[in-house]
Amino acid sequence: MRSSDSDRPRHIATVLFDGFELLDVFGPLEIFGIIPDRFTMSLIGPAAGSVRSAQGPQAIADCSYHDAPPADVVLVPGGIGNRRLLGDKTFLAWLAEWASTAELIASVCTGSVMLACAGLLKGHRATSNKRLFSWAAGHGDDVEWVPAARWVEDRNRWTSSGYAAGMDMALAIIARLHGEPLALQIAHDIELEWQSDSTSDPFAE
Amino acid sequence: MRSSDSDRPRHIATVLFDGFELLDVFGPLEIFGIIPDRFTMSLIGPAAGSVRSAQGPQAIADCSYHDAPPADVVLVPGGIGNRRLLGDKTFLAWLAEWASTAELIASVCTGSVMLACAGLLKGHRATSNKRLFSWAAGHGDDVEWVPAARWVEDRNRWTSSGYAAGMDMALAIIARLHGEPLALQIAHDIELEWQSDSTSDPFAE
Repeated sequence: MRSSDSDRPRHIATVLFDGFELLDVFGPLEIFGIIPDRFTMSLIGPAAGSVRSAQGPQAIADCSYHDAPPADVVLVPGGIGNRRLLGDKTFLAWLAEWASTAELIASVCTGSVMLACAGLLKGHRATSNKRLFSWAAGHGDDVEWVPAARWVEDRNRWTSSGYAAGMDMALAIIARLHGEPLALQIAHDIELEWQSDSTSDPFAE
Repeated sequence: MRSSDSDRPRHIATVLFDGFELLDVFGPLEIFGIIPDRFTMSLIGPAAGSVRSAQGPQAIADCSYHDAPPADVVLVPGGIGNRRLLGDKTFLAWLAEWASTAELIASVCTGSVMLACAGLLKGHRATSNKRLFSWAAGHGDDVEWVPAARWVEDRNRWTSSGYAAGMDMALAIIARLHGEPLALQIAHDIELEWQSDSTSDPFAE
């Protein structure tokens, strides 16, 4: 990873799909977006334009998967809509190729299942939503699924547990890239009690 | 408030504006949206169509302020973009009239300052963002600003502290309307450690 804080901002691209989970996307983007000198961002969708969330509200994709430029950080959310993408070979091949050049690949909730199906977690430790963990852990080849973890960092692959865990992971990514004081400051500013221990998982069975 | 769980879903309308804060909107909407049998939702903006958040990502307003139908629950987020609306008499008059018929009016972060300027907190206790509390508490007539509270419930006016506090308040609203077991279940499902004590505020000065 780049170590100098004087570098240009990293570009974080979030993969949207019909039925994405609101908090998986906008929890982390609240956190990355609050330091625009460190992170710029775009939303990538099936096509440029509106993409409906699992809850109903729509966000606007800046460009299509096909037109997505390379990203420094790739963020893959969960959401009920990802189920039909798990068998979509065209989508998975695109995701595998496009994400492969990123400095860091992160997922929230069942986003890790999409990464696993795309082969992006091969030889890596990872976690996922805890209520759906047994289902999640049935996916991917050569993935070491971790049943109790708020998030898992394995080299440049970061996978968080469900929903709200994405915010704790986002702060940990900032701590890794820019130091813990900045992450603590952001947590304070957004009035979030950061759960900064990745191994503490009150929602594991 | 309606007490029967057999009623139709309540409609929650969220007021967007250019520069709204992502987490103030999509944290609570994640929570309300996960029980679509209890809540339906719409986004209201200056015009129907895209509205840019403070962080950059855009959401789609279903209709304009002018065309907004009556809502059961009104949600007003904060965000740097609300500063110029605080002196916009046309907007404030619309907000005061439109929101006045709602069963419940809620705000997150500096959304309470907009409510105060619209006269909707007159004679009420309220809170706001804690880093900006001194500034926030300078607004509105006859508002009892509470400096230490995760959120404040005063009759049908609910105001939360900054950003992440909106999710704790949303769960408390669900507990009030539909009982604490449902709120606890949702918190568990979205892997959020619900801070359910409104008087516990680690971010108050």
